[in-house]
Amino acid sequence: MAPAERAEYVCPACGSRFPVDSWLWRCPRCGSPLDVVGDAGFRRVRLGEGNTPCIESEALGAMVKLEYMNPTGSFKDRGSSLAVGAARDLGHRCVSEDSSGNAGISVAAYAAAAGMGATVVVPRTAGGPKRDLIRALGADLVESETREEATRIAQGIGGCAYVGHMYSPFFVRGMEGFAGELRSCPSEPDAVVMPVASGTLLLGAYRGAQEVGLDVRLIAAQARGRAPLYTAVHGRDEGPPSRLADALLVERPPRLGQMVEAIRRTGGDVASVGDEQLVAALRDLVRAGLLAEPSSAASLAAYRSLLESGSISRGERVVLVLTGSGLKYAQSLPGILGRV
Amino acid sequence: MAPAERAEYVCPACGSRFPVDSWLWRCPRCGSPLDVVGDAGFRRVRLGEGNTPCIESEALGAMVKLEYMNPTGSFKDRGSSLAVGAARDLGHRCVSEDSSGNAGISVAAYAAAAGMGATVVVPRTAGGPKRDLIRALGADLVESETREEATRIAQGIGGCAYVGHMYSPFFVRGMEGFAGELRSCPSEPDAVVMPVASGTLLLGAYRGAQEVGLDVRLIAAQARGRAPLYTAVHGRDEGPPSRLADALLVERPPRLGQMVEAIRRTGGDVASVGDEQLVAALRDLVRAGLLAEPSSAASLAAYRSLLESGSISRGERVVLVLTGSGLKYAQSLPGILGRV
Repeated sequence: MAPAERAEYVCPACGSRFPVDSWLWRCPRCGSPLDVVGDAGFRRVRLGEGNTPCIESEALGAMVKLEYMNPTGSFKDRGSSLAVGAARDLGHRCVSEDSSGNAGISVAAYAAAAGMGATVVVPRTAGGPKRDLIRALGADLVESETREEATRIAQGIGGCAYVGHMYSPFFVRGMEGFAGELRSCPSEPDAVVMPVASGTLLLGAYRGAQEVGLDVRLIAAQARGRAPLYTAVHGRDEGPPSRLADALLVERPPRLGQMVEAIRRTGGDVASVGDEQLVAALRDLVRAGLLAEPSSAASLAAYRSLLESGSISRGERVVLVLTGSGLKYAQSLPGILGRV
Repeated sequence: MAPAERAEYVCPACGSRFPVDSWLWRCPRCGSPLDVVGDAGFRRVRLGEGNTPCIESEALGAMVKLEYMNPTGSFKDRGSSLAVGAARDLGHRCVSEDSSGNAGISVAAYAAAAGMGATVVVPRTAGGPKRDLIRALGADLVESETREEATRIAQGIGGCAYVGHMYSPFFVRGMEGFAGELRSCPSEPDAVVMPVASGTLLLGAYRGAQEVGLDVRLIAAQARGRAPLYTAVHGRDEGPPSRLADALLVERPPRLGQMVEAIRRTGGDVASVGDEQLVAALRDLVRAGLLAEPSSAASLAAYRSLLESGSISRGERVVLVLTGSGLKYAQSLPGILGRV
């Protein structure tokens, strides 16, 4: 059966439907990011992504799901696996992505594995080691002034299928398996705390949980001053903006409305954490042997802050998601932790 | 039942036996590295190690076991998990290790997770990012002139249990699960090609395979000019010594006799590869989306060399082991691959 007979793009805003054998990421009628429904039968590109460990950490007083143990060191691999596979199966020879780093590395690796070209547009604030990895993987690296400009450039690259994680319906879809894996944690969680920027993991977890009938509160951790989801749920946040959480700097996530819904419908919450809380959390993670990247420490920092406010109760079984690997930050970690 | 009643250290050279509730790594009678037999009941420290993915790579014409997808980015985590756990269960508060990098990072992480102190002695040739990670994990970093001096210093640190991977019987023991996991590869392999320095993975695979009744040829890849196992099996190798394979620079592995036996008894082989072959192999790995460290490319380079010589036949189902993560090499990879 051809993919088009079994799956469709659906616009969650205006309800329009489009065949899945075209390559769309935004509704041609109203401009909203599209979802994809049904089984398109696309084959994932496989580099060993998913099925990450979930361990009990006595030191942290919670379970920890190690999403940094994906092939390129971030949860983004779940999305790239399907989004790049779908582009390949539809006959595209090249993909494009905009990213502050992790998604760019991931898309570059999956495109390489699929034998496809890749162009990755990064804002000039993106970290050096992340750029180096993107280039080493053979992708074309293009620099932009801002995160928003990166998105515009990546979407406009002729001849390439745009797999940008903020928009691609396949990217979100690729995340859904995460939810079912929570059943393999040491105990089934009541709540999951995860760093959130563009919302792909949050939305993937939300839809995946519905699919497998898992009842879990979804709790988002954002970086202070860069916290559009926090602002949408709680009103404007205060304090100096984070300079450390470089993987969380998405100021206008296109799926914001869907993200608010995922938080509200699961009885979840959002916390916004400052750099002081981030550094304290990162130190405790690393000293528990958990080599996470600074942005990932947001989940531990948020957990602590919500325990204190009572939004998470002491009796809840909680999973903290560590989304990105500290191995990419080898040279900056000692400085951040205050041991230069 | 107390550990001492159920397990013993055994010297493979002189046959002496010692109770496992003492902390030994070398035979007090003849100086050989000890093995440990029986079930000591020690609890591993858990950071999500093991059960690494095994994928089919069409581009490489072989299956690939991604040992770099261990918590600290190397296969060493399997050994640290048990060796540090055993030291903790025997009441030690601190561990010591000598390492060119990966094992040091791994021991530092597992000691941190166990709430223990760690001292890691690295030769001055050890890479900067690897030192940075060891320090970030809170271990004391000591520098030595040579690899041999590192071993002497680490073994002599008072008050610390030496868990050095070249000697520790628990480190080798911790690797054994690797063999059984080969059954979960896309097809059960006839041969496994792995980079070999001190031989812990080779010996763990050998003993683990015997335990689960798996019949597989064990093939070692070594770096030219730093290839004691190759020399022991084939006689002296020729050509300029490798400068790239920094994780393979062990010139006098104390378990060399056991390594030769593992190769011979499984009908395996050893190849020695030069830097030109390593770079070509690394390029092909990375361009297949596999972010391995330079030393790990030795398994692909050896596979190709042994296919050519006929030591591996075209019909054999082969697994290449990628032991270390390229994420630790972000900044040097583009240069090594010739794209500065």
